[in-house]
Amino acid sequence: MTVSSGDPVTEPDDAYSELPPPALLFDLDGTLIDSVYQHVIAWRAALSQLGIDLSVWRIHRRIGMSGGLFVAGLLRETGVQLTRAETRRLQDLHAEEYAAQLDSVRPLPGSRELLQALTRWEVPWAIATSGASATARPALKLLGLPEDTPMITRDLVRRAKPDPDLFLAAAHLLDIEPRHAMVIGDSVWDLLAARRAGSLGVGLQSGGYGREELERAGAYRVYADPADLLNRIDELGVRQPL
Amino acid sequence: MTVSSGDPVTEPDDAYSELPPPALLFDLDGTLIDSVYQHVIAWRAALSQLGIDLSVWRIHRRIGMSGGLFVAGLLRETGVQLTRAETRRLQDLHAEEYAAQLDSVRPLPGSRELLQALTRWEVPWAIATSGASATARPALKLLGLPEDTPMITRDLVRRAKPDPDLFLAAAHLLDIEPRHAMVIGDSVWDLLAARRAGSLGVGLQSGGYGREELERAGAYRVYADPADLLNRIDELGVRQPL
Repeated sequence: MTVSSGDPVTEPDDAYSELPPPALLFDLDGTLIDSVYQHVIAWRAALSQLGIDLSVWRIHRRIGMSGGLFVAGLLRETGVQLTRAETRRLQDLHAEEYAAQLDSVRPLPGSRELLQALTRWEVPWAIATSGASATARPALKLLGLPEDTPMITRDLVRRAKPDPDLFLAAAHLLDIEPRHAMVIGDSVWDLLAARRAGSLGVGLQSGGYGREELERAGAYRVYADPADLLNRIDELGVRQPL
Repeated sequence: MTVSSGDPVTEPDDAYSELPPPALLFDLDGTLIDSVYQHVIAWRAALSQLGIDLSVWRIHRRIGMSGGLFVAGLLRETGVQLTRAETRRLQDLHAEEYAAQLDSVRPLPGSRELLQALTRWEVPWAIATSGASATARPALKLLGLPEDTPMITRDLVRRAKPDPDLFLAAAHLLDIEPRHAMVIGDSVWDLLAARRAGSLGVGLQSGGYGREELERAGAYRVYADPADLLNRIDELGVRQPL
């Protein structure tokens, strides 16, 4: 449709309103720190202490989703029934086993530099993780971040991923609308939660998912790891101030 | 094109020759036994003893390929230079670290039953692994298989996967042509080696690769694990004798 110049359809000021520049909401495990495989091993050890034998790849594929959904999914696959107390014990055992391996967890390449650059460029960003505060807090130190870094953990919302609550809360914390945020995550659960939050999803391969799977789950772009994302951040429309 | 019944294009006997029923060539780690993540952890520990820090997912993605290519790839990614002696030491350290975790390795669901069924149905099958004999032999016991199970290990061929040598040698051992064999593997290296051998590739997700990635690498079908394959083995044209 062409509108002739004589037809004032709207007042010039209302033609469109400028959107704010994008903010970035980061998943933690597999996105900023290299901890996915330690979580896998910790879940396997915890399950085996309860006498549950489960193929390791099936555990890997559920990392990053809510602990409740995780356990429910495992139980369906194994046919095992757990009481509420046993489920709680399983989660406690996982936390213990993960803590025991914490000293082998490293930041992913480029994650420190990426977050420092965003801060320098005044791009708002936050962390949103399905992990509990006790498990997630030590990562701040690892990433060289202050204690007051904007971070939403499992205990601050009603439902974890793939529900959108964590990202909605993180956007609220930054005082931005979720549709102006990009979610950066390594798992299909992050990307599903991003779509449900109305945010744009961006995938990283650093958690072990392949590019195709992340794209099919809705990732607009897929990068190898934070270093690769930082290197090509113009592709996300993030502008460095002159 | 239609050939009228009056046109004897070939003699009836030459019209086509019957092909033998398919034989199955199995990868080992991630295909028959749940050992991929233990290999990943063992490589990570070995690398870290040589002062090399590498993201775990990058190690995972190279599991199943030849040790030489594996190390060459890692070195390119990290920019580290290793002497021949250091490379050898890295491989020895990996073997040690893997051996230390061997008691946590389990058969994948359905692998024993699948191999027993093939034997009962007189379908020829063999194992072809990029692993050395010392690392692979203990798996036979785990799978309840006799010592004389047809198996080709790294030390029996010039090049491991993704070169086709392991599968070519396994087909030769069974006295079949590679084009009448199906290769069952969990990694893109198995599927590349299968194509180069002229065999049909079938993927299993039990090593941690996603369905899409295995399909793109050339898998004719993708199953979750050996149990899933056994359950739908008619899809591969494997017939159970009446």
